[in-house]
Amino acid sequence: MAKKNKSKITKKKTEIMGSLKKLGTQIYDQLDSGVFPTISMPSRSTENINYDPNLRQYILGEKTVTRSARNIRHVKPFTQLAWAALFSNELTFHRKTSTLRDVYYSAQAYNMTFKNQQESNNIITDLETATGHSREDFHIFPEERSAVFGDLTIGYTVPGYEGKTLNLSSHPDGVLIGPALTSSEFVKTSANKVIAIEKGGLFTRFIEEKVHSKHNSILVLTAGQAPRQTRYFLRRLHDELKIPVYIFTDGDPWGMHIAMVIISGSANAAHLRNLNTPDAKWSGVWASDIVKYKLPSDPLDEVDIKRLHELQRDPRYQGDPLWRKEIKTFLKIKRKAEQEAFSRYGLTYIVDEYLPTKLKQTS
Amino acid sequence: MAKKNKSKITKKKTEIMGSLKKLGTQIYDQLDSGVFPTISMPSRSTENINYDPNLRQYILGEKTVTRSARNIRHVKPFTQLAWAALFSNELTFHRKTSTLRDVYYSAQAYNMTFKNQQESNNIITDLETATGHSREDFHIFPEERSAVFGDLTIGYTVPGYEGKTLNLSSHPDGVLIGPALTSSEFVKTSANKVIAIEKGGLFTRFIEEKVHSKHNSILVLTAGQAPRQTRYFLRRLHDELKIPVYIFTDGDPWGMHIAMVIISGSANAAHLRNLNTPDAKWSGVWASDIVKYKLPSDPLDEVDIKRLHELQRDPRYQGDPLWRKEIKTFLKIKRKAEQEAFSRYGLTYIVDEYLPTKLKQTS
Repeated sequence: MAKKNKSKITKKKTEIMGSLKKLGTQIYDQLDSGVFPTISMPSRSTENINYDPNLRQYILGEKTVTRSARNIRHVKPFTQLAWAALFSNELTFHRKTSTLRDVYYSAQAYNMTFKNQQESNNIITDLETATGHSREDFHIFPEERSAVFGDLTIGYTVPGYEGKTLNLSSHPDGVLIGPALTSSEFVKTSANKVIAIEKGGLFTRFIEEKVHSKHNSILVLTAGQAPRQTRYFLRRLHDELKIPVYIFTDGDPWGMHIAMVIISGSANAAHLRNLNTPDAKWSGVWASDIVKYKLPSDPLDEVDIKRLHELQRDPRYQGDPLWRKEIKTFLKIKRKAEQEAFSRYGLTYIVDEYLPTKLKQTS
Repeated sequence: MAKKNKSKITKKKTEIMGSLKKLGTQIYDQLDSGVFPTISMPSRSTENINYDPNLRQYILGEKTVTRSARNIRHVKPFTQLAWAALFSNELTFHRKTSTLRDVYYSAQAYNMTFKNQQESNNIITDLETATGHSREDFHIFPEERSAVFGDLTIGYTVPGYEGKTLNLSSHPDGVLIGPALTSSEFVKTSANKVIAIEKGGLFTRFIEEKVHSKHNSILVLTAGQAPRQTRYFLRRLHDELKIPVYIFTDGDPWGMHIAMVIISGSANAAHLRNLNTPDAKWSGVWASDIVKYKLPSDPLDEVDIKRLHELQRDPRYQGDPLWRKEIKTFLKIKRKAEQEAFSRYGLTYIVDEYLPTKLKQTS
């Protein structure tokens, strides 16, 4: 596994640097041939975002936008995009990580101005769209932190840690999913499944009750909506280890949608690939589980109900009939329940009874 | 260091279990001698919370409250408190962790009812007050997660990991500060200081730029306001390793107060000890740094200004004159700046220039 992955990671790095070089070369070539340089990329306007039932994720359509140095209104975003590519190239080359916030402030070190952070964020998304690579590929990471635990040995590729390995069961509180983890190679595992969990309390409970060894699983804490690098990590676990991914969330529209974004991605990331795991399963807490297990529950708020009606119309929910069935049940019972609600049957019931039943039911 | 700490940890465990036993024995003895059982504890009402300038934290005064099984209005909270002690005893004995949310739902497994989670949270705080131990001591942990990185070898005391050690520099994204970490023994370190950091982006930057080795430091990510177990961990690092703690936050009233809560604790935890580190230093970003370093800054909002006036009257801000001086500067310049603002001088300026200057200035 290690050797194959190593070449895969080196290949990816070459691809990423290559995409920036291509962008730069294109500008130089246009200047050389005496024309105003332009950059074209798919449009991210709402009407150009379509759900692709085959890819099972949102994608961008045929519409393109062009930034031309000839157009006075384009000169600023064109220059900003060129700078973002330069800065990303420096980060990637020197293997330094950064954040969206850093990008905004770093611009000042280059006498490049952004009106506000929204403007610099947009330019970074332009760079993603123009190159097809996510900002994480260019070493620009978000703030959010999630975690992982289980029998997977990783080999680091970050500076100072090349050649070092870590088994992800070394620290029983879990280790952070950050730049070093997502860029690591997968060396060795005994796991035959991945279990993604929304909440920290349950993640700790699963570790304590040895779900990782009882169910040969790698446990991933999404800590609410899974950050993009966590979604990318889940996809890599699925594809490279060739093992299924099960998702456990609260039994409410928001938990359901955490699972959906892991499975089918978000409209915001329609210009990117490999951030979703189409074959991952939402294993619970389903609306029907609230009924079946007589869970302590709370009434749905108005905002929950509004959200359910939105999700009913969402193209991502038109595939597996499970989704629409569970939305209907939520709307019928008008109740929601948290994962912790299983504690009414004792702290270990969720691990001893519920988990094995649901793994079987959704595999 | 290890041997001394080991006995210290065993001693603490005995103390914790002992405090619950004492509470239970007291109730039994009262029943045996034919009187209605009562439990007395310090009052947590606002007028009984006083700032102690010697301890440099909030403490509870002389006023006590009593819960008596004789009083019909007390029967419910008395029973709930006895149940909370029973449940905590089970958790501690079986070495299982739990959350406040779990406690609320678990009660149902014992036919114990709480009106809502606020009620069960209050009873857990009663138990803390009656025993003088924090809920974390009874294995009831919060959801929030923070992280640590650096050359510190810890020895685990949690089930399944006894005898195992981990060096906290093993994973360059950092490892989570959870129940396993806070209950571990400190075995070996080369660090001579602790640096606590508010934000994830800067935590990663410090690791990448090798602040841990250049400055022989253990890096702690508070991820905003430091959770109680992180504050307890900082206190242990300070006391057991006998090394200073420096805190780096955003340059605004909220960042300043993150530092203050680490140093002088919160009124909410006035009934507890060892959650604050009175000798820790707020090393920046100060209001005066915004001026000195000409940092990109934003105007203070109305809510920021209101907060600064509150902090001016707060007893915790009456000690070191630094605090009042910086509050005055904030109010004068009417600006705030984030840690990332240093990126205007390049990504590594904060590590190469600012950090060494501030460490020197505040030591």
